[in-house]
Amino acid sequence: MPTLSVVLEAIRDRGTVSRVELAQATGLTGATITHAVRRLIQLRFVREAGQVSSGTGTPRRLLALVPEACHTVGIQFDRFRTVTVVLDLAGRVVGRRMDAGAGVRDPESMTTALAGIVTALLAETGVARATVLGAGVVTYGPQDQEAGVLLTPQPTDAWQGYPLADELARALGIPVLLENDATAAGLGHAGLGSARSSFATVYMAGGIGAGVMLDGQPYRGSSSNGVELGHISVDAAGEACTCGNVGCLENVAGPTAIVSRARADPALSARVDLAADTLTAFRRIGRAALGGDRAAAELISASANALAIATVTLVNLFDVARVVLAGDAFADVGAVYRDRTQQALARASFIRAVHAVDVELSVQSTDAAAIGGAVTVLRDLFESARRPRVRG
Amino acid sequence: MPTLSVVLEAIRDRGTVSRVELAQATGLTGATITHAVRRLIQLRFVREAGQVSSGTGTPRRLLALVPEACHTVGIQFDRFRTVTVVLDLAGRVVGRRMDAGAGVRDPESMTTALAGIVTALLAETGVARATVLGAGVVTYGPQDQEAGVLLTPQPTDAWQGYPLADELARALGIPVLLENDATAAGLGHAGLGSARSSFATVYMAGGIGAGVMLDGQPYRGSSSNGVELGHISVDAAGEACTCGNVGCLENVAGPTAIVSRARADPALSARVDLAADTLTAFRRIGRAALGGDRAAAELISASANALAIATVTLVNLFDVARVVLAGDAFADVGAVYRDRTQQALARASFIRAVHAVDVELSVQSTDAAAIGGAVTVLRDLFESARRPRVRG
Repeated sequence: MPTLSVVLEAIRDRGTVSRVELAQATGLTGATITHAVRRLIQLRFVREAGQVSSGTGTPRRLLALVPEACHTVGIQFDRFRTVTVVLDLAGRVVGRRMDAGAGVRDPESMTTALAGIVTALLAETGVARATVLGAGVVTYGPQDQEAGVLLTPQPTDAWQGYPLADELARALGIPVLLENDATAAGLGHAGLGSARSSFATVYMAGGIGAGVMLDGQPYRGSSSNGVELGHISVDAAGEACTCGNVGCLENVAGPTAIVSRARADPALSARVDLAADTLTAFRRIGRAALGGDRAAAELISASANALAIATVTLVNLFDVARVVLAGDAFADVGAVYRDRTQQALARASFIRAVHAVDVELSVQSTDAAAIGGAVTVLRDLFESARRPRVRG
Repeated sequence: MPTLSVVLEAIRDRGTVSRVELAQATGLTGATITHAVRRLIQLRFVREAGQVSSGTGTPRRLLALVPEACHTVGIQFDRFRTVTVVLDLAGRVVGRRMDAGAGVRDPESMTTALAGIVTALLAETGVARATVLGAGVVTYGPQDQEAGVLLTPQPTDAWQGYPLADELARALGIPVLLENDATAAGLGHAGLGSARSSFATVYMAGGIGAGVMLDGQPYRGSSSNGVELGHISVDAAGEACTCGNVGCLENVAGPTAIVSRARADPALSARVDLAADTLTAFRRIGRAALGGDRAAAELISASANALAIATVTLVNLFDVARVVLAGDAFADVGAVYRDRTQQALARASFIRAVHAVDVELSVQSTDAAAIGGAVTVLRDLFESARRPRVRG
């Protein structure tokens, strides 16, 4: 874990803090702390904040974070939704908005729209663009993260190979990083203070994905395109997916599949207004289920069961002790999925005799991935090598 | 990657080599090489081997490995088989034998049997026990590797919590490490020279497991009990497994399941002698399939299909570019599984547009896990922390 990030986090956690206390809190040497603090002061991220006497010794100078020193932007979009956030250096969300997703727009017009959204949000929140270090744009895979390019013809053929990060950076005038949505949701859930946490994230918005954090670092695999939980087969006799696999979790349990089944049920369609985008319709089905609609509840239950089984697979393969559910699709019915997944893990995880696996619902289901996009920019600033590559 | 291991590997690869050439080959500084070589000579693993003049410069002293300086033992067992190997420091197999598996023996008598096997093998190969650094005992999970204890009531209740590593160490008078069979198969396939390789291992012997190597290090997860491919669900409507899950790959595709189905087919049972232990019977079914027996071929084909689908899951989650098939069950029919898995990955891996995923059959299917047990002892010698723990 990069030193600057650890020190900055320790300052942030404590409000004001002396160098000696920082050394105690982080386990780093005094010399390392001195060096890191000097750099953070140069960056204007940290300032001297008076001093305190401690008994008979030399008074200790205090340090404090300068939260408004810089900001980062996170943008998560899929076909159905765009969530945009602005974070300050303290990791606080100082601006947030939700807009329409990409639909079937071509990448050029979507990029223009995203740039407009960011500009409007910065204006609304009174954040000067000069303080914005960069933006993390967060969406589905496969991606070439280093090149900032999507490697999929979703939602239209024109997106395949489109230089999204470069074009958005040009439109915004700030650096842009590309990140996977499920990985970002994990980063967003853990926040900047994710130095040592390990957990899997199951992410459900327009689609289903997952991410794994190990000791504060995202699991990357050989091309940063791993942990694609939505495209593991949960039904060998299931229908073919555009990905090439059969019975993909996403086609069994994802919002598109559930909404499609709901629309095929005339009685349910009569009770619940499904004339909306997929995510909105899915959330209406979820709220109907919570309100006691039996047909809606059965659809959500089937989805939760399939997701729970796939999460057992995820846990049996990655051997994590904690699973976080995040994403807009969990905003209303997350507790149903959480309980079903917890039950499945308690019954069927291979390692349950060795250690428990706890499931929790992200408190910021809808925004976690966008927040993670903003966090990844800050992490990138501090880390010499953001994405260690694994060679094949 | 630990320096000593890298340097030893470079010496081993080159026969005789100078310190300057070692620095060039490893990218390490001259001072680091000098320090590492001094330690390796102290350990008597490396010796001075004359010198060469290189043009006008000072003659360079040459270094060579002392392969017979030390040995390590690897023991892989399951219910059906025990494979034991002795490796020298060059990683060469200098002794090897195969014996009966644990069957339903209690752990005490199996431990006594294993100690007898090792003693006999050392005598057969003329290896002095004083040169044996340790043994790696390799079997199924879940395990507490640090404690050297099995955490499963397989094959009998008495095995649950039995201090296998300690008891075997006491019986043998040498240190014993416990390792997962599939992880060991990966280590055995890569050998000591696995410094930078990344791949997944799919292991099939009595059961089915898997391992992932990333940059030469096994993926460990939070308790070294990950990558349990045999216990991911490939059939949500499948039968319940003792592990708590339903439709586990092992119960659909593993030797026990295939042999059980073959025995239920009177015509097939009349053609193929299945009155043998499960692994022997499975290999006979495999050879019958290769010989043109249609019923046998259908069973192997069904097994290969299920294994291929599960391997797509493994690849979609871990994003590796290479898959190695290892284990005694692949000894005859490995090519069928390799081809089926390669086809499935070419059709259905999520990342196939980003990078190819190659499937290969380990050239030492039957022995890879035992060899890996011996390799893990050598690695442990060189690494300060063999198994970095991931906190939950």
